[in-house]
Amino acid sequence: MKNTFGQSLSVTLFGESHGEAVGAVIDGIAPGIPVDEKEIEKQLSRRRPSSALDTARVENDEFSILSGVFEGKTTGTPLCIVIKNENTRSGDYAYGTARPSHADYAASRKYHGYEDYRGGGHFSGRITAALVAAGGILLPALERKGIIIGTHISQCGNEKDRDFDNVLSDIITLKNADFPVLDGNAKQRITDEILKAKNSLDSVGGATQTAVYGLPAGVGEPWFDSVESVLSHALFGIGAVKGVEFGLGFGFAAANGSRVNDALRVDKGRIFTETNNNGGINGGITNGMPVIFRCAVKPTPSIAKEQKTVDFIKNENTTITVGGRHDPAIIRRICPVIDSVAAIAVCDLLAQRFGTDYLAGEEPLCSSV
Amino acid sequence: MKNTFGQSLSVTLFGESHGEAVGAVIDGIAPGIPVDEKEIEKQLSRRRPSSALDTARVENDEFSILSGVFEGKTTGTPLCIVIKNENTRSGDYAYGTARPSHADYAASRKYHGYEDYRGGGHFSGRITAALVAAGGILLPALERKGIIIGTHISQCGNEKDRDFDNVLSDIITLKNADFPVLDGNAKQRITDEILKAKNSLDSVGGATQTAVYGLPAGVGEPWFDSVESVLSHALFGIGAVKGVEFGLGFGFAAANGSRVNDALRVDKGRIFTETNNNGGINGGITNGMPVIFRCAVKPTPSIAKEQKTVDFIKNENTTITVGGRHDPAIIRRICPVIDSVAAIAVCDLLAQRFGTDYLAGEEPLCSSV
Amino acid sequence: MKNTFGQSLSVTLFGESHGEAVGAVIDGIAPGIPVDEKEIEKQLSRRRPSSALDTARVENDEFSILSGVFEGKTTGTPLCIVIKNENTRSGDYAYGTARPSHADYAASRKYHGYEDYRGGGHFSGRITAALVAAGGILLPALERKGIIIGTHISQCGNEKDRDFDNVLSDIITLKNADFPVLDGNAKQRITDEILKAKNSLDSVGGATQTAVYGLPAGVGEPWFDSVESVLSHALFGIGAVKGVEFGLGFGFAAANGSRVNDALRVDKGRIFTETNNNGGINGGITNGMPVIFRCAVKPTPSIAKEQKTVDFIKNENTTITVGGRHDPAIIRRICPVIDSVAAIAVCDLLAQRFGTDYLAGEEPLCSSV
Amino acid sequence: MKNTFGQSLSVTLFGESHGEAVGAVIDGIAPGIPVDEKEIEKQLSRRRPSSALDTARVENDEFSILSGVFEGKTTGTPLCIVIKNENTRSGDYAYGTARPSHADYAASRKYHGYEDYRGGGHFSGRITAALVAAGGILLPALERKGIIIGTHISQCGNEKDRDFDNVLSDIITLKNADFPVLDGNAKQRITDEILKAKNSLDSVGGATQTAVYGLPAGVGEPWFDSVESVLSHALFGIGAVKGVEFGLGFGFAAANGSRVNDALRVDKGRIFTETNNNGGINGGITNGMPVIFRCAVKPTPSIAKEQKTVDFIKNENTTITVGGRHDPAIIRRICPVIDSVAAIAVCDLLAQRFGTDYLAGEEPLCSSV
Repeated sequence: MKNTFGQSLSVTLFGESHGEAVGAVIDGIAPGIPVDEKEIEKQLSRRRPSSALDTARVENDEFSILSGVFEGKTTGTPLCIVIKNENTRSGDYAYGTARPSHADYAASRKYHGYEDYRGGGHFSGRITAALVAAGGILLPALERKGIIIGTHISQCGNEKDRDFDNVLSDIITLKNADFPVLDGNAKQRITDEILKAKNSLDSVGGATQTAVYGLPAGVGEPWFDSVESVLSHALFGIGAVKGVEFGLGFGFAAANGSRVNDALRVDKGRIFTETNNNGGINGGITNGMPVIFRCAVKPTPSIAKEQKTVDFIKNENTTITVGGRHDPAIIRRICPVIDSVAAIAVCDLLAQRFGTDYLAGEEPLCSSV
Repeated sequence: MKNTFGQSLSVTLFGESHGEAVGAVIDGIAPGIPVDEKEIEKQLSRRRPSSALDTARVENDEFSILSGVFEGKTTGTPLCIVIKNENTRSGDYAYGTARPSHADYAASRKYHGYEDYRGGGHFSGRITAALVAAGGILLPALERKGIIIGTHISQCGNEKDRDFDNVLSDIITLKNADFPVLDGNAKQRITDEILKAKNSLDSVGGATQTAVYGLPAGVGEPWFDSVESVLSHALFGIGAVKGVEFGLGFGFAAANGSRVNDALRVDKGRIFTETNNNGGINGGITNGMPVIFRCAVKPTPSIAKEQKTVDFIKNENTTITVGGRHDPAIIRRICPVIDSVAAIAVCDLLAQRFGTDYLAGEEPLCSSV
Repeated sequence: MKNTFGQSLSVTLFGESHGEAVGAVIDGIAPGIPVDEKEIEKQLSRRRPSSALDTARVENDEFSILSGVFEGKTTGTPLCIVIKNENTRSGDYAYGTARPSHADYAASRKYHGYEDYRGGGHFSGRITAALVAAGGILLPALERKGIIIGTHISQCGNEKDRDFDNVLSDIITLKNADFPVLDGNAKQRITDEILKAKNSLDSVGGATQTAVYGLPAGVGEPWFDSVESVLSHALFGIGAVKGVEFGLGFGFAAANGSRVNDALRVDKGRIFTETNNNGGINGGITNGMPVIFRCAVKPTPSIAKEQKTVDFIKNENTTITVGGRHDPAIIRRICPVIDSVAAIAVCDLLAQRFGTDYLAGEEPLCSSV
Repeated sequence: MKNTFGQSLSVTLFGESHGEAVGAVIDGIAPGIPVDEKEIEKQLSRRRPSSALDTARVENDEFSILSGVFEGKTTGTPLCIVIKNENTRSGDYAYGTARPSHADYAASRKYHGYEDYRGGGHFSGRITAALVAAGGILLPALERKGIIIGTHISQCGNEKDRDFDNVLSDIITLKNADFPVLDGNAKQRITDEILKAKNSLDSVGGATQTAVYGLPAGVGEPWFDSVESVLSHALFGIGAVKGVEFGLGFGFAAANGSRVNDALRVDKGRIFTETNNNGGINGGITNGMPVIFRCAVKPTPSIAKEQKTVDFIKNENTTITVGGRHDPAIIRRICPVIDSVAAIAVCDLLAQRFGTDYLAGEEPLCSSV
């Protein structure tokens, strides 16, 4: 449903880059979940521009919770969180000259010129701040139930990080990292890659890898509400994401079944698979192993180099040199966004499976590997 | 909603591999669409096992339309199509010993042992026959409106086909091909790859590439109903699909913006992009270029080699040699399934955008490139 | 979603009066629910024409379950049930002359002449057979959890039945009654009322009253998924239903708060209300008292008297004397339909509240009054 | 979906009576619709307490639009409107003693004590301010397309207003009335009825009647998305509404078909019905006549008389005399709420039928009677 995701837990997004505010309404959160503004602030700070690698537009992300929290806990009714916009420079934008690979032209065909085009309007990455704020509530709630989510930069340009190995300790590493990578050397290599793009007035793409640890087996549905369907639906909501793969993903294309089938074993009564090439999902349903997926992230389309484009009002060819303040890469800042989107989708899946009180208490939902 | 996909046009799947029938209810088809049983049969025959490359279980796919068609045309009310199961050998299956990388174990955690486990039950690829039957109605309907869809084997094992180039003529090539590839030499190479797997009692994975030509610009929604979200949601409903990418997809990870941004041009009043790295979608909305995506397809998990597994009833380690009749690769047979799933998702997007009568008449919906 | 109702448990209807079959796909039933064909047959027989009070078109309602049941129990995957049409006389109908108060004209504006008009097509009461078949599965499943549903004829023409009093014993009375009334004398009075209409070549309307006993408190949502919203949405799906009221309903209009507020009391630890004017629902959420509602049922529009109408093809005035075989009143036959629709809505509400396994086991879901 | 209504146009509600604000996110409004803050203010003022007939809690209803409007027009992306709470006196409320016929006890079973109980929290009529604000945008937008909606007090206690007669001029009368009745004498009679209740420390119920004029024929769906289903779903979201009937509604129960069937006629090429007992809907689909419905509204449960109740924390019997500031009747203030809810439902139905641009331009959508 357009800007609403989720059936049992749902998130509705609103806001434009240069409007008054961005925000989200989260409905269907179990009642009694602690809401700690410091946790929200912590997630928002992970997304915030913080160095020469990021845009010069810095927001304080001052937020307020308008509803749904009472005496520090969720009420179970809709929680509206609003984040003010500041530090906008609308003069940087004009209507009609499409920025290549941005939504400008496509949006004009849908909204007939009524769209708020300033700073990308509703299509701006700015709206992801609202997603991350939601994550600031849901991620700690999931952790109390033993479900822990982490995302690292898997690739950026030609540089790669290592894959998840010991999932739980890797996620804990990420929680304490100032730069979301697993391999100690990757930070420098990736930083250099981004600076290289920046110095060439260019941008660079990347890929992320995410693990969801602690999900019980038996969650999800066959066919159209497979865990893959639900997660990908939410993840492709992020404009920069152009690919999603689970487990081996496209690596399956060249593989033989005998090599990539995940052998099952039982040890001390617990069933697990020796490998996890299926990323914790079989037939659309969790098997108790960590859910593992990758997202492809396209390079920021805004670059300071001159590009060919059209003026879609005058219907004529022209060129553009995108001004404004932009990230040479969003691969670092997208990691907390993906964590949050994954948390939203996981909460919805759990609410479908276990009902309204899915997050109550602190014991694990079920045994999981 | 579980086994139902779509908001304005929806498809509800039912059936099990060894039950009486599989089928689908399609609701929200525009009224007055011709339904030609030969077209349905043609699509079903594209999916049917046909050679040494495929399973020995052959179905006639005898279908009947129970509702929603009157005097050869859709009525606009729900169309139920039922395909009988035949040629089942349930003796090939027993409950408790999980086939590795199949849904057996995950399903048992969700359905508590009540699932119909014979032949994979509701998780069987057999259910895709119902999707393909739906495609036999929707694909010709879309073609009448100038929207044409084609899927080819992009990769199988170590062999690759070339990518879409001249999209329209490539799709026409595929419509007339007995083996869904674009490069004339690819058929032999891929056939050999599959036979190699078969002869090793093994299976092999692959990837597909799909093009949707003729979609007008301005279809889809920002954020949670992006065209990517809607398509991937439907595509990941297919159990074997483990990755979906649009345009360059994971190829964006190593790319610079200056290289992969799609420059816009106008020619004789029509706006297009010189390249189509974004796969026809910006900000979740179509830009009038062909929508291009790839799916990763895992190797058939059923192989005749012995594998380690568990008996999840006895909770003990064991081994399995999967009997039954299986495909060494499903990459050929999945192409019409993906065409059909894409048609379903596209019809839903069009119905949302243009209303109930979205497929009426024969003129193109709007200008597109 | 058009012909699909429900979020966690959903029912998708299909079929036309004179087509091959009518049926339903039920998705989201908890796994392990016994499916007894005799119970389905029993519900269908309650709906079947059985006397001079009903239409002369008699169907055997031969049904088959195509999927979703294995070894006598629900699998948890979609259950498709199909009921063949027989005894159709399409010659009774012609296109263009609208039957007053039927859907003929409205449907022609929506479906542009492509609708199957024979016998009302998809708008026919015949489709309710599929709803009743669903009830044959869900009603016994709810009973095993202590939730029991009953509907009686509250009014027919100028004759009335008494209201529910001791709800549980009244429902049990209805389960064993051959004519759904609570007052022993009402059967004869209502029968006479219907025969009077029949003998005048006329039809007569009515109202039903339904009780759902045993629902735990705390089910439903504030605002748009109130129990009233969900139930009325489903009930108004039945074409003949033109009003739905809960508890006192329209009786509230003339009442003072002091008279109709439901005083709460506690006895032996159980909280209840002394009266139940709110019909078991406050703020959209169950309070543990029986849910009580009434439906207004319009007279069968088909009557053998001449009526003024239009031919909407020729766009000219004309008259019609509706032939075919029709019920002088459907008020008796609609009772099992309403039971079934209530069961569907209740199961959906329970699945939302308690998750996928909401109907497992046989203990009550929670304490209720 | 809980606090979200609508498929193609949707409204998501949030807020509590004594929280910071109440509000709504409206998604799927067609782009380019003028948004006039004076119209919003006008609707809000219709709902605002204004005399001795209403609560003494007066709000200024200061609102701000956070998103979705650009240069005075809708963008087509989500519109978030927030209305601040003021003038709250939380000291008036304490937790545990259930106010009879309020949601207090039911909510405690659902939210386990985490609900914001102050002033009824999320169950408060205060939230309807957000619905009315939405109406302030949608009602004028519909009027530009020739669709005009009006609601009057049909009954209050023992006093009645006359029914709609000449629908269009009656609605215009209501638009200009300071008290929503059609019969010139009804204002005084109803005012007296309310004051009588007030002076007895009591409250009184009522009923409303609404007309939607100008809807084209062919809108809505058979079965589960009937116009009745969609409207009643939305209307029963309002906590005080306990009954909804279309056209004759419960009046059908005592009627014969020959008397209440709506004869069709054609005049100057336009088809209409001589009577409108079906309230403009046949088989769930509009027939081009005005859509007419009534809502039953229960007396405000808050009364200053002592009532029997329970303390559901201590689980013991007690009494309550409801303090706070309350309306002796909400029947006047609910009229603009129902207008707004009807507008929301109608916009959703139109968007489903005609697509995203359903409200663009100013010509009527189609011919209607």
